[in-house]
Amino acid sequence: MTSSERIWTAALVVIGDEILSGRTHDRNIAQVASWLQVQGIRLVEVRVVADVEAHIVEAVQALRVRVDYLFTTGGIGPTHDDITVDAVAAALGVPVVIHPEARAMLERYYNGRGQALSEARVRMARVPDGAALIPNRMSGAPGIRIENLFLMAGVPHITAGMLEALTGTLEGGAPLQSETIGCWVAESEVADLLRNAEEAHAGEPGGIQIGSYPFFREGRVGANFVVRSTSAATLARAAEHLAEALTAAGHRVTRGEI
Amino acid sequence: MTSSERIWTAALVVIGDEILSGRTHDRNIAQVASWLQVQGIRLVEVRVVADVEAHIVEAVQALRVRVDYLFTTGGIGPTHDDITVDAVAAALGVPVVIHPEARAMLERYYNGRGQALSEARVRMARVPDGAALIPNRMSGAPGIRIENLFLMAGVPHITAGMLEALTGTLEGGAPLQSETIGCWVAESEVADLLRNAEEAHAGEPGGIQIGSYPFFREGRVGANFVVRSTSAATLARAAEHLAEALTAAGHRVTRGEI
Repeated sequence: MTSSERIWTAALVVIGDEILSGRTHDRNIAQVASWLQVQGIRLVEVRVVADVEAHIVEAVQALRVRVDYLFTTGGIGPTHDDITVDAVAAALGVPVVIHPEARAMLERYYNGRGQALSEARVRMARVPDGAALIPNRMSGAPGIRIENLFLMAGVPHITAGMLEALTGTLEGGAPLQSETIGCWVAESEVADLLRNAEEAHAGEPGGIQIGSYPFFREGRVGANFVVRSTSAATLARAAEHLAEALTAAGHRVTRGEI
Repeated sequence: MTSSERIWTAALVVIGDEILSGRTHDRNIAQVASWLQVQGIRLVEVRVVADVEAHIVEAVQALRVRVDYLFTTGGIGPTHDDITVDAVAAALGVPVVIHPEARAMLERYYNGRGQALSEARVRMARVPDGAALIPNRMSGAPGIRIENLFLMAGVPHITAGMLEALTGTLEGGAPLQSETIGCWVAESEVADLLRNAEEAHAGEPGGIQIGSYPFFREGRVGANFVVRSTSAATLARAAEHLAEALTAAGHRVTRGEI
């Protein structure tokens, strides 16, 4: 990485007892991570916290000053366990208000279905004072944007809709590109070779990182080696270097994941 | 929750660039969460951090003093990107040493396969000074236990083997039990009813929490309401209360998840 490259960073707070109890398998970490990757924004930390205001406040306060963008998922629905808006308002030291546009969006959505905008549903128009909305074409209830915070739904397909609405609107840097080299080898056999390949290219434009992801499949061990750089040229050189070194050591390599 | 009940808590640090980049979908959070649930230990926070020593150190130092048990997954293999042992040793202020028993385990494992214990493989016998081992029948490389820390592998089936070895060895409290009530209703329609049911039983032994998990399926909205308590009796009363209240409001309920 040359020093002139600006790296844009993000963190994610996943809010939900259901993840911590093991009841629900989180799908938002991978979804947000992949989306950020495409935006050229690097996800640097994720925290999963319980539906407890103090825990949410602490995570938000700790992370929002460290990253360019802080996302949350979960806890913005209409029920008593949805406390993200209150927690974020507390973290920022602002009151909670009803956002008129959010209220109107919800009213249109429910009226269009012959239903009333009940008190519980109005809860979904509550925002920290000063917030803007993130459109959500799935359920009428918008996400919320305030300062560098983006509060999104916990239900993955609704989160996806909100990410779609944000696509291309956040400034990012050069995306980290990657190339994968698969090899039926125990990673411990080629550890030196991996380290050497990384060290040989680490100082080049865009930098280089090589990750080793071992697996055990069909009775054999193997690994995928993922080479990453923000420069396509450095990436190509380092991947070629690694593939040649593995081949020279007598291993058959696959360009791409196995 | 009565005040005499001791609640045992845990946190998890997931170490891995591959999760933050979106390349790999984490499976250890759900696996560790479900396992802890059965041990009567409550998972209170998860952090996902990059393969960067300072980040691992910070997460470990922040969490280990807050919980009874701190688990990590990832970064204990033989390659250059496996830095968990060094980071944890730094967090605890102890040196890294070769554990003789771990070295012997690895030697037996590799010799039994006609392979040598290379320098890279000896790396997997490195532990923070003072550590004990967590057996791993899958790959020979043990997990590591030191103070209230448990360092486990990142590859899910190896993590599973280490959890199996730890089963029944950690003191826990009464497990949080749960009952799920499914209902084809928009959660916003029954928000008051949920809140009332929770408030009515919150002061009883074992406490009560009601979580609402909405979904959109087959063109209809619905929700699963999960009632949780450490007391079976309180749980049964609160679940019955909620089911009756939903039925009285004209909704058909399913005992169990839909």
